[in-house]
Amino acid sequence: MVESTLVTDQQLAEEVMEGILPYTGKSIRIGITGVPGVGKSTFIERFGKMLIDQGHKLAVLAVDPSSPASGGSILGDKTRMEVLSSDKRAYIRPSPAGTTLGGVSARTREAMLLCEASGYDVILIETVGVGQSETAVKGMTDFFLLLMLAGAGDELQGIKKGIIEMCDALVINKADGENLEAAKRARREYANALHLFASKENGWYPQVKICSGLSGQGLDDIWQMIQGFMEKMKLNGFFEINRSTQRSNWMHEHIQYLLENRFYSDQKIKRELNLILEKVKSGEVSPIKKAKELVASFLK
Amino acid sequence: MVESTLVTDQQLAEEVMEGILPYTGKSIRIGITGVPGVGKSTFIERFGKMLIDQGHKLAVLAVDPSSPASGGSILGDKTRMEVLSSDKRAYIRPSPAGTTLGGVSARTREAMLLCEASGYDVILIETVGVGQSETAVKGMTDFFLLLMLAGAGDELQGIKKGIIEMCDALVINKADGENLEAAKRARREYANALHLFASKENGWYPQVKICSGLSGQGLDDIWQMIQGFMEKMKLNGFFEINRSTQRSNWMHEHIQYLLENRFYSDQKIKRELNLILEKVKSGEVSPIKKAKELVASFLK
Repeated sequence: MVESTLVTDQQLAEEVMEGILPYTGKSIRIGITGVPGVGKSTFIERFGKMLIDQGHKLAVLAVDPSSPASGGSILGDKTRMEVLSSDKRAYIRPSPAGTTLGGVSARTREAMLLCEASGYDVILIETVGVGQSETAVKGMTDFFLLLMLAGAGDELQGIKKGIIEMCDALVINKADGENLEAAKRARREYANALHLFASKENGWYPQVKICSGLSGQGLDDIWQMIQGFMEKMKLNGFFEINRSTQRSNWMHEHIQYLLENRFYSDQKIKRELNLILEKVKSGEVSPIKKAKELVASFLK
Repeated sequence: MVESTLVTDQQLAEEVMEGILPYTGKSIRIGITGVPGVGKSTFIERFGKMLIDQGHKLAVLAVDPSSPASGGSILGDKTRMEVLSSDKRAYIRPSPAGTTLGGVSARTREAMLLCEASGYDVILIETVGVGQSETAVKGMTDFFLLLMLAGAGDELQGIKKGIIEMCDALVINKADGENLEAAKRARREYANALHLFASKENGWYPQVKICSGLSGQGLDDIWQMIQGFMEKMKLNGFFEINRSTQRSNWMHEHIQYLLENRFYSDQKIKRELNLILEKVKSGEVSPIKKAKELVASFLK
């Protein structure tokens, strides 16, 4: 219903979202990113299984602003997570359809709150490493985890600096079999490289871990790290600071969405846009000037 | 003046931008991206020198939405391009300051138009590969070039799929000395990998080239490729289609900017925001609901 585009559904959805508000916010929200091929699904499958076996209720969501050219969405194929998708203690939700990243992440955030209100206490939000999607997921989670491969050449120069600055932990996956030694080497290298970055305002130093989503090796260690992080942040107050900032950002994002929505659904604006669009496209008139005139006429 | 925040400057700047409109659009607009360390400055320095020696007037601009944590801007240090920065036939403009990518790219686009109006016929727009900046540069250029290194492990899985889909050419830099053979191998691998992607709507197949920004090897080949691209696109009409789309996108981006600008500078909204912000942050009230109320009150 939250994802529905029917006005009647939307109104009902709003009331629901209002009603559940007091019952939200009690989960651990974990963001997970990494380039395709890094083994996100296997990691989440195994990590999630460990959590539900420990008695947690787990929700797995996804933010996937598919590139216009490629389309396609992660988690689309639940069979990629056979164990979790067939387990009642886990809820898996593919990335909602949406033309804008803003729309997709808004839907995901609402799904997250609904999961919390229905008792899920660990939420994993997966994103494929494309552009701003990490920022969106970082903006709705408590802990941000970057999955990587050893020797896949993700030298730090190759990773977007912005993503390194975002992540609370850098986890080298597929640390098994012949790959184990390479993974250990990579851990040392990354650990050294990360020291070049200042510690975060919240006093946390990004950790470097190795694990195997396949064998499960190291997953408990990662879970302990995350719990340690939550403890520390709740003690030093940065857990609440982060959540507060996220709430106000959420409001500002929705304001932006609403302003554009009202603008483009305005009948007068629709007519005026039709009249000038061709002239703008041909370069006859300045896009900037026309934007000004349209906004002025909308706000008049 | 275009970058000035003074209202009087802005009004004058608008008139200037209006006035130069008929004299813009006649350059070849080339976007260049690549991770730090790939040798963008050296490439641009040498490539640019070649162009001005052929009688072109060259402008080098940059889009660098520095991550909040890191700050810093590319092209900030002109000495990275000694030859060009000391040559009257070249104009180098560092990335304009700005808090939002939208603001930064708007300024860059205006700088581009000003350069065209003053007779620069080749514009290079550099961006460091962070998040959406490629999309912004792609959105204001005719040809998009991705610089890479051989054996730096930028296997295609490591490159964001979205960026591959964007680029018209993938150029392996530093193809010199001991690196030459590795570069040739990489060219073959990338060429094969690129065939997995469908050809673009405009009928262009992304090319893979090798070059040395240091020795200049292969730069003429790249320039010929770009000229061939321009010819082909002008023949099949996609040059104009692309420019038209860019113009209308530009208008829509500016509409978004103006709507938010008017909203947040509204005195009543400022007061109301102050009253509710703390409640939103504490989670007492729904960010979504408050956003709705604020926008409603703004549009009333």
